[in-house]
Amino acid sequence: MGRATDRRRTVRIDLDATGGPVSVRRPDSISVEEPLEIRVGPAGPGRRRPLAVTMRTPGDDLDLAVGFLLTEGLIRSADDVLTAQLCAGDQTPNTYNVVDVVLAPGVPEPVADPARNFYTTSSCGVCGKASIDAVRTRSVFAVADDPLTVPAEVLAALPDRLRAAQRVFDRTGGLHAAGLFTAEGEQVVLREDVGRHNAVDKVIGWAVRAGRLPLAGHLLLVSGRASFELTQKAWMAGVPLLAAVSAPSSLAVDLAEEAGLTLVGFLRGRTMNVYAAPHRVTV
Amino acid sequence: MGRATDRRRTVRIDLDATGGPVSVRRPDSISVEEPLEIRVGPAGPGRRRPLAVTMRTPGDDLDLAVGFLLTEGLIRSADDVLTAQLCAGDQTPNTYNVVDVVLAPGVPEPVADPARNFYTTSSCGVCGKASIDAVRTRSVFAVADDPLTVPAEVLAALPDRLRAAQRVFDRTGGLHAAGLFTAEGEQVVLREDVGRHNAVDKVIGWAVRAGRLPLAGHLLLVSGRASFELTQKAWMAGVPLLAAVSAPSSLAVDLAEEAGLTLVGFLRGRTMNVYAAPHRVTV
Repeated sequence: MGRATDRRRTVRIDLDATGGPVSVRRPDSISVEEPLEIRVGPAGPGRRRPLAVTMRTPGDDLDLAVGFLLTEGLIRSADDVLTAQLCAGDQTPNTYNVVDVVLAPGVPEPVADPARNFYTTSSCGVCGKASIDAVRTRSVFAVADDPLTVPAEVLAALPDRLRAAQRVFDRTGGLHAAGLFTAEGEQVVLREDVGRHNAVDKVIGWAVRAGRLPLAGHLLLVSGRASFELTQKAWMAGVPLLAAVSAPSSLAVDLAEEAGLTLVGFLRGRTMNVYAAPHRVTV
Repeated sequence: MGRATDRRRTVRIDLDATGGPVSVRRPDSISVEEPLEIRVGPAGPGRRRPLAVTMRTPGDDLDLAVGFLLTEGLIRSADDVLTAQLCAGDQTPNTYNVVDVVLAPGVPEPVADPARNFYTTSSCGVCGKASIDAVRTRSVFAVADDPLTVPAEVLAALPDRLRAAQRVFDRTGGLHAAGLFTAEGEQVVLREDVGRHNAVDKVIGWAVRAGRLPLAGHLLLVSGRASFELTQKAWMAGVPLLAAVSAPSSLAVDLAEEAGLTLVGFLRGRTMNVYAAPHRVTV
């Protein structure tokens, strides 16, 4: 995990320092951001083709790649992946910025789509309710009937637990976190990344590789906002409750309502807002 | 701008309310997130093809599309765009979630690349210093020699100014902001969006369409973190100073150093860190 942070020279300016404004040169820890190329191909001698490049914090890269493939709807379980390995790409020395995924026999290769991107699958015409259909990847897991309930008291304690568990945050202040918890508030896994979607994909990829999908009875907590994309990722993994420290977006709420997925926002201190499927949060 | 916010029913839980925990149903303002499809094509009867879909907050969509095209290196100025208009797509009624861009004669069409995405252009092999080459779009503007200097006192006042100018933030807490300022701290333009890259593209697209590029002598302030992507966008627009309220990433610092672009992070209260080209910040 040494590559998760790095040091850079910086000039620290404090205008209210004792004795007047000061400008001091000093080293500062910062979060590492590097591109990860995900290559995918069929079993056999065929060449793997670049599918996506994501700007991520190095670490747990196989989880990231597998989680990305699952939340994009390209695989359904770990069985759909024959091998996934960090590889050198065309670089010498090996930079560990390429993950090479070989799909299991019978798993369809991703279709090249010039308008495809990290968040969405493009489609002709996108609007209101229809836009959800246009951009979403349908989950194979139903979460609407998940019997999970979580006491609000348990939820209120999680953000502090997330921060306490963040090993990197205190040093750099630059990482998003995503944590998977049980209904009792026990932390199952936590991942950090400069990209919040990557942090979530790392958590979900870990669960995929551990054979733990669907994540029924679990809840996912993210350190930032709840976007459509993160809500979709939670649904794709079968998580029945997504909680965010900050605000949700309209499309996140709409998707959560449609999925029957509980969406909690502004989880701060001893208060929270429940935007969808509030029956799972008990007071 | 009515579509920038919407209202949803929410259950507000307060565990420390007077008299014990309460759970109250009430409406809440949230930030609107909807997909915007950007279609691009040549002049003439040829059909425009989908280039990208971004999840954005509606408003200033033409600026967003033009800013995206510029920061992705697909156009160099407003002259490269013959027309840009919101259109119905294939939907009836018009949902205003599609922008149709007709390039000027002679401007090359974007090349379809299955591994292309919002952040980066994929390439074989990505690592360290080489990774910057692999993922970036080269700027046509040199910022290293920009004579801009900004007093630290001026910088320290900007975050409050940004927040004061954010019309939507107070109602939803869910939007990122990007503001363009002069060296004297005068606000030129401010944009908000659920996606921070969109907020920056809206600012830059506004400048492109106003014929104000390169943005020499200006500074760009973002409400969140400084990623590689945002630093690249600033460079593409010829902005010599990027300031962020929160942390920068390692690749943002590396790119800023290479470009000679001043990068300020943790601009909070009366303190800040300058990570690259610190000579432009005077104490």
